Amino acid sequence: MKKSIVNARIITMDEKMTEYKKGFLTMEGDRIVRLGDMESFQEEGEIIDGKNGILMPGMINTHAHLGMLPFRSLGDDVKDRLRRFLFPLENQYMNKNLAYWGAKYSICEMLLGGVTTVLDMYYFEDEIAKAVDAMHMRAILGETVADLETCDSREPGSGFAYAEEFIHKWKNHKLITPCIAPHATNTNGEESLKRAKKISEIYQLPITMHVAEMDYEMKYFKDTYSMTPVKFLDSIGCLDESLIAAHCIHLSKEDIELLRKRNVGVAHCIGSNTKSAKGVADIKALLDSGIRVGLGTDGATSGNTLDVLTQFKLFANFHKLKNKDRSIFPAQEIVALGTIRGAKTLHLDKLAGSLEVGKQADFVLLETDSANMFPVFNPYSVIVYSANSGNVDTVFVAGKCLVRHKKLVEVELQTVRNGLLGAMEEMLGSDIVKTVN
Amino acid sequence: MKKSIVNARIITMDEKMTEYKKGFLTMEGDRIVRLGDMESFQEEGEIIDGKNGILMPGMINTHAHLGMLPFRSLGDDVKDRLRRFLFPLENQYMNKNLAYWGAKYSICEMLLGGVTTVLDMYYFEDEIAKAVDAMHMRAILGETVADLETCDSREPGSGFAYAEEFIHKWKNHKLITPCIAPHATNTNGEESLKRAKKISEIYQLPITMHVAEMDYEMKYFKDTYSMTPVKFLDSIGCLDESLIAAHCIHLSKEDIELLRKRNVGVAHCIGSNTKSAKGVADIKALLDSGIRVGLGTDGATSGNTLDVLTQFKLFANFHKLKNKDRSIFPAQEIVALGTIRGAKTLHLDKLAGSLEVGKQADFVLLETDSANMFPVFNPYSVIVYSANSGNVDTVFVAGKCLVRHKKLVEVELQTVRNGLLGAMEEMLGSDIVKTVN
Repeated sequence: MKKSIVNARIITMDEKMTEYKKGFLTMEGDRIVRLGDMESFQEEGEIIDGKNGILMPGMINTHAHLGMLPFRSLGDDVKDRLRRFLFPLENQYMNKNLAYWGAKYSICEMLLGGVTTVLDMYYFEDEIAKAVDAMHMRAILGETVADLETCDSREPGSGFAYAEEFIHKWKNHKLITPCIAPHATNTNGEESLKRAKKISEIYQLPITMHVAEMDYEMKYFKDTYSMTPVKFLDSIGCLDESLIAAHCIHLSKEDIELLRKRNVGVAHCIGSNTKSAKGVADIKALLDSGIRVGLGTDGATSGNTLDVLTQFKLFANFHKLKNKDRSIFPAQEIVALGTIRGAKTLHLDKLAGSLEVGKQADFVLLETDSANMFPVFNPYSVIVYSANSGNVDTVFVAGKCLVRHKKLVEVELQTVRNGLLGAMEEMLGSDIVKTVN
Repeated sequence: MKKSIVNARIITMDEKMTEYKKGFLTMEGDRIVRLGDMESFQEEGEIIDGKNGILMPGMINTHAHLGMLPFRSLGDDVKDRLRRFLFPLENQYMNKNLAYWGAKYSICEMLLGGVTTVLDMYYFEDEIAKAVDAMHMRAILGETVADLETCDSREPGSGFAYAEEFIHKWKNHKLITPCIAPHATNTNGEESLKRAKKISEIYQLPITMHVAEMDYEMKYFKDTYSMTPVKFLDSIGCLDESLIAAHCIHLSKEDIELLRKRNVGVAHCIGSNTKSAKGVADIKALLDSGIRVGLGTDGATSGNTLDVLTQFKLFANFHKLKNKDRSIFPAQEIVALGTIRGAKTLHLDKLAGSLEVGKQADFVLLETDSANMFPVFNPYSVIVYSANSGNVDTVFVAGKCLVRHKKLVEVELQTVRNGLLGAMEEMLGSDIVKTVN
């Protein structure tokens, strides 16, 4: 049966940036079958009143660690908390159950914040896939492999077997694309990186990892190889269009040229990168080169919120300041980074990222009744500079309504929180948790 | 009759940063009369269940232009939009009615976002005071005077008569402190600045203005006086503890030393200053010198949202990055800037800014039921890095409940919006509005 959202201000984010001031969107099954001005609307099927809200494509989070949710607000302002708290906590307390419930809760938060597609890399990725599947979200999910002992691979490198099994299990899922995720250039050696690349080639799947994020990573590559991490990845054949490189804070001009030539996608995590005082990637230079760039929240221990709206505001202010120009990156371009450009970064733009006939019905309705959402002279400005996750009224993924009137449709948030709390029990009694803050 | 909020996680922001993990706060009339752990609670009077939310002092917005609300989302990303759009719009369309409704709407938004005290400077300040009075908010309100034609003073300088009349009318109000607000160092000449200073001395009231905000302001003072604006203000006797200087982006070491010596308060507007690509004030240096600093949203055309929670997140990320240190400005210090330090900046710390017996019952309850508000290992982290205005559940000012369950108690937001829309009618038909975006 057809379903239509009517009486909404529609920003399609298609190539022409088509807008409908008072428009409708009709879907059938999982796809958009029609959209336009209300004058051309023909009533048929179920009608949902958009109440003058802003209808936009579902937002795309190109870098996250969903399972880390239970550690949020622990040691935010502590130096090197990654090695002091997070790695030990993960190694000791992360298990299948905690990963599943952490991911499920994260998905609830993302959906409630208007995110319809996520690229995740974490451990126990099979559990995370189960949560994504249960929640009907769109995702690219990468099992993390590293040359370290990790919570799901006690023998360094044993994550590869897990990863291949994971890929086999999920490779034909409608909404989930499995992938492989070496942890980072500095936590995976050459052999391990090449092995991951090989797997991505065999299965024709994406590969994602942290690249040029850390000061010590840059120093290590300079000291060891007299190369940047990007140049190193290229030298071992790991740089091509299948790679989605997260962070990319520290890039030389040559690195940018390499990323462009190899058609690498970049997941830019402005919130995480600045809260941790690491730096601001030169997104202007990347975009000027034609590189595909999307926005990522990073894990909830790094960026705290999992919605792309938070990233919009931070992106605007950091990049306007960096470029000393208030007119650079007008709001419309920033919304594009969180929608169509994010989809391109993940090679999902044939399915998602804009509202167009034939594409999947992944969209978000922002209400404009709240105090912060008025006036709407420019809907992109309202989205970037005013909106927060609390303004997300309705969310559809692949034609299915997952959020309505700011509540999850299929599950109670409190039920998921209770599940997560149960899984956190052991961790809550740990000395680390008691002493962090 | 006594009223108590019970079962809340209380952060008092008092000198010892006292916290109650499961606490209560009892008020009588406009004052806090008791607070502590639930174990010591004695039931009496009305009980409000805090439902494990976070109870904190009402937030303090030290710099705003409430009347500008109707221009929000107009020309955000346009170069020099102040002179191209905003000044012309103000000159042509701002009037008593629009100022009143713009302010009233802004107050609704602030209250719904947890702001209980605001320092405003704008035109038709008498209208703004009427709106503040009607809404029962705490405020310092300054009529803006400038050596330009302004919307409420067609003869340059005629704002002084308005200002004195305004001060007379409001100087004995319980919640409102009138003040005088020269527009800026570069839009008020020496005579006008001295005259404003004189008025502030006669009535023993604060004075506020924009200081060291603009590149062209810095150049003007260098070219004309071979001085910084701060040094110039000092040279004409305008620098003392009655001054609340907004922005202060461009300060020399000598300026900082002068601000300290004269005990000037600074209203730091990180969101506005970075969105406009102007710069990041050196707040670490100001605080290290012992200067009183609070946070400000600026007008809704500059910072867009009017809540202090937005400023917290931006403050954290910008100042951590500026100082290349993720551990600088831990979340607790940032919350202090929006509460007790803001109150000190405005010389209102005997009344507000922390939850202490004898102080005014100005407080905010943040719910922790929403997805973004869990887990709460560190309540300050949750406030700074996760919370948004949509998490504000309950707000009291001077013992009166103004927001409950995320809705205004005394008025419907939609009624105020309708009033504002009516006042905007003429402006909505203007060519400027039609062509800005």
